Amino acid sequence: MSVPEKLYEGKAKILYPTDDPEILLAYYKDDATAFNAQKRGTIVGKGQVNCTLSAALFKHLEAAGIPTHFVEQTAGDRMKVRRVRILPLEVVVRNIAAGSLCKQTGLAVGTVLKHPLVEFFYKKDELGDPLLTRDRLLLLELATAEQLQQLQTMALRIDEILKDFFHQCGITLVDFKLEFGIDGSDRLILADEISPDTCRLWDDSQSDPEARVMDKDRFRQDLGNVEGAYQKVLERVLAQTPPSAPH
Amino acid sequence: MSVPEKLYEGKAKILYPTDDPEILLAYYKDDATAFNAQKRGTIVGKGQVNCTLSAALFKHLEAAGIPTHFVEQTAGDRMKVRRVRILPLEVVVRNIAAGSLCKQTGLAVGTVLKHPLVEFFYKKDELGDPLLTRDRLLLLELATAEQLQQLQTMALRIDEILKDFFHQCGITLVDFKLEFGIDGSDRLILADEISPDTCRLWDDSQSDPEARVMDKDRFRQDLGNVEGAYQKVLERVLAQTPPSAPH
Ligand SMILES: Nc1ncnc2c1ncn2[C@@H]1O[C@H](COP(=O)(O)OP(=O)(O)O)[C@@H](O)[C@H]1O
Ligand SMILES: Nc1ncnc2c1ncn2[C@@H]1O[C@H](COP(=O)(O)OP(=O)(O)O)[C@@H](O)[C@H]1O
Ligand SMILES: [Mg+2]
Ligand SMILES: [Mg+2]
Repeated sequence: MSVPEKLYEGKAKILYPTDDPEILLAYYKDDATAFNAQKRGTIVGKGQVNCTLSAALFKHLEAAGIPTHFVEQTAGDRMKVRRVRILPLEVVVRNIAAGSLCKQTGLAVGTVLKHPLVEFFYKKDELGDPLLTRDRLLLLELATAEQLQQLQTMALRIDEILKDFFHQCGITLVDFKLEFGIDGSDRLILADEISPDTCRLWDDSQSDPEARVMDKDRFRQDLGNVEGAYQKVLERVLAQTPPSAPH
Repeated sequence: MSVPEKLYEGKAKILYPTDDPEILLAYYKDDATAFNAQKRGTIVGKGQVNCTLSAALFKHLEAAGIPTHFVEQTAGDRMKVRRVRILPLEVVVRNIAAGSLCKQTGLAVGTVLKHPLVEFFYKKDELGDPLLTRDRLLLLELATAEQLQQLQTMALRIDEILKDFFHQCGITLVDFKLEFGIDGSDRLILADEISPDTCRLWDDSQSDPEARVMDKDRFRQDLGNVEGAYQKVLERVLAQTPPSAPH
């Protein structure tokens, strides 16, 4: 089989078509960007780590009843996924205050939220992925009121599942970003990736605010040993994951 | 009576105490600022125009059943107001897309909104007055859920009244910012000012997108003739206002 033309190249992944029009091949890159791609770099081995982690987490979520785009991991850095129409939304769930929430509200980093907070950002690089109110989201017709309700419910359920899972890995799930898409049967399913690029993860065995960071904040804030942190997340997650049956 | 010490000086007004602890004297300045005070200047006569306009609009709103802090205008550039505890919120009502809504969503300036949009911003200069979602507002305890509902209802009612009133002046009310406060009896009342500093006003007799602007956007965007535009708003509003009884 010849190498197919890529369908779309983003900041972290390349999507290729496959023989099946409903299936895409997602290739995870080592490229790292932050601050709306103003900061760029490479995290060696990130493609493999994020692909393998995403595969493990999607499988875990599927087993818990969440519909995802995941089909199978076909190599260290690539997986087959169901093709969807991505909603142009970044659905962020927060358990602990960090990142833009702190910058925009003055809340101290590390403030434990009484309830998980589900937030929506407009996935639009030209605008800098701005925060959306419910009214703005509906005004821009980025989703219907019904979809919004469904996204909220799914995001909170995913948070419960992932919080528990990471807790067993000795990791605190601070916050994370999800993307959802609509499949051929108009079903809302979880898509994109779940990785240290898209989650804030704090090592429960470290109390130092820099030492505990196991995610892309190490890259954003130049904390060093980015590769080591990503590898450690992978090791801990795989240790909690049932060995996959040979296929 | 000696000149009292000022209680608080803001970007557009100075508040002085009076002999009555429940009453403040608000003195309107000619100072103009924009973009979170990064741009500064003077609009000659603005203090008098904004004070007189605010007085006329507060009176009109009171007559229509909206509780406001307005007591009486005591000179061209000053008025007595009821002292309140200001909620740290900028309540923005939009009828037509303009300003930060366009910058943050990509909506074209001038897009007529199907329904008026009520938005809340955190009144906090250090943070750049960021947009608030309902959840963030409640998380920060900037208002209670009940107050939020009341603010929404009052803001929409004020929009109806002011839209009608400006329409009679040949002016389109594009959007405006309100501040509310809590008085001694825990009542939510409209405070601060209503002026070309806090409203976007378009002259119905002009179709050119620059010529029609009668508000602080002339200063923000260096469109010239800022004083003339403010004066014209005042003339048209006073022509629609019943002459005040001598007191
Ligand atoms: N199952 C899917 N079907 C179609 N598009 C997808 C799917 N999963 C993810 N995508 C999209 O693939 C693109 C590439 O991913 P990525 O490199 O992370 O992009 P970005 O630079 O937008 O973050 C993104 O636009 C993402 O929304
Ligand atoms: N009735 C009132 N009682 C107490 N404070 C008020 C009242 N009306 C307005 N204020 C406050 O007066 C201050 C001065 O106004 P202004 O110069 O416009 O300030 P700013 O620089 O915050 O825009 C503001 O903090 C405003 O919220
Ligand atoms: Mg991405
Ligand atoms: Mg002000």
